[in-house]
Amino acid sequence: KYLWEGVETYYSLITEAEELGLEIIGDVKRGDIGHTAEQYASAHLKNPELVGLEDTITPDAITISGFAGTEAIVPFADVADQQGKGIFVWVRSSNPGAAEIQDFADADGQKMYERIAKLVNQIATEQKRVGSSGYSNVGMIFGGASKEVAAALREKYDKIWFLIPGYGSQGASAADCVQFCKTDGTGALVNSSRSIIYAYEKPQYKEQFGDDWKRCIEQAIIDAKIDLSNAMQTLL
Amino acid sequence: KYLWEGVETYYSLITEAEELGLEIIGDVKRGDIGHTAEQYASAHLKNPELVGLEDTITPDAITISGFAGTEAIVPFADVADQQGKGIFVWVRSSNPGAAEIQDFADADGQKMYERIAKLVNQIATEQKRVGSSGYSNVGMIFGGASKEVAAALREKYDKIWFLIPGYGSQGASAADCVQFCKTDGTGALVNSSRSIIYAYEKPQYKEQFGDDWKRCIEQAIIDAKIDLSNAMQTLL
Repeated sequence: KYLWEGVETYYSLITEAEELGLEIIGDVKRGDIGHTAEQYASAHLKNPELVGLEDTITPDAITISGFAGTEAIVPFADVADQQGKGIFVWVRSSNPGAAEIQDFADADGQKMYERIAKLVNQIATEQKRVGSSGYSNVGMIFGGASKEVAAALREKYDKIWFLIPGYGSQGASAADCVQFCKTDGTGALVNSSRSIIYAYEKPQYKEQFGDDWKRCIEQAIIDAKIDLSNAMQTLL
Repeated sequence: KYLWEGVETYYSLITEAEELGLEIIGDVKRGDIGHTAEQYASAHLKNPELVGLEDTITPDAITISGFAGTEAIVPFADVADQQGKGIFVWVRSSNPGAAEIQDFADADGQKMYERIAKLVNQIATEQKRVGSSGYSNVGMIFGGASKEVAAALREKYDKIWFLIPGYGSQGASAADCVQFCKTDGTGALVNSSRSIIYAYEKPQYKEQFGDDWKRCIEQAIIDAKIDLSNAMQTLL
């Protein structure tokens, strides 16, 4: 929408977040095959080498689509490896209609997203991709799961970080999300975008802080942290 | 890779192509759900309203991913409608490993890509999307098909434009590609990217034109046209 000025802002934001010591995930949802996948991977994960742009950096991790299979995921995983970064592969989404395609099942009852998860896990558990933490730098994005599904995935894929969208505006509860954590509390990254960014539109924050959108955002983050942390207590 | 300067170049290229009277398809392969899909759709298909950028235009059509189902496709189709433009939904790719996920079949033998094609066709054949040509502005991207599959798809989806990647560098022959045309010669857009763009690297053009990359490209286009047109003759 804001064209190259939008892209410039995206990179300024990354630089600011980096200076604050934050881990940065670019939700770019890129996906393509072969040559284009390699180019996308370099563009999103390698810092630019252009003269005069030495201070510009790329995210610590990005999201990608796994629709085209192993050979579309590996180029991203390899560039992430070289750069000491990570990727999260879109395995199942949190939209109500996701089932339409992603839950498509074969004769044995295996669902399409389970097939993708299996391929992603094969790539993720290659020795070079698993670090001293026991986790791979190749993770999965998993939205809209029941408790049973979450527990099964957590157990089956013990080297995987799950990036969990859907918390807040998209309707997932804290309890739903923390199901993807191990009992040590690691293993899941819960994402909340709109319910934080647009907190200033919500009556409960508007009443308290009026037009001060920064305070609205701040409070929404505090509330989310408390909510998630409470849910986590019941899990541990 | 070239950050905002790359984006600026992308839009300059579109403007130049528009001035030459060409139809422009942005191969952006975007895909996400709900709110983000709407934002992507506007960003890629609506001309920007920023002051000072009135001359900047967006492509006539873009490519998208159909992985998240109907509700991820409709926002793009709706913006395309409003703008008098089109979209091509990625149904099957041309990479050798595409089968791994895209040919995943249910108990009845229906493949995953066939499921996506069916959903896309449902959206594409809504009355408002079919023009006087008899074609919808919602098309499908279809690579790596056998003759039989191509013929079956062509017959089944008679309001669909197929965007056919894989010609040239990716290994599809002209005969493979034109299978997606109707007997009047319409219905398929054959795409060739790398074998045109990188023609200057190919021995047969290098020998003839040396370092003159423009002539190499020009000749590669002429050769592709002759090849496709010959294949088309045998079809009609």
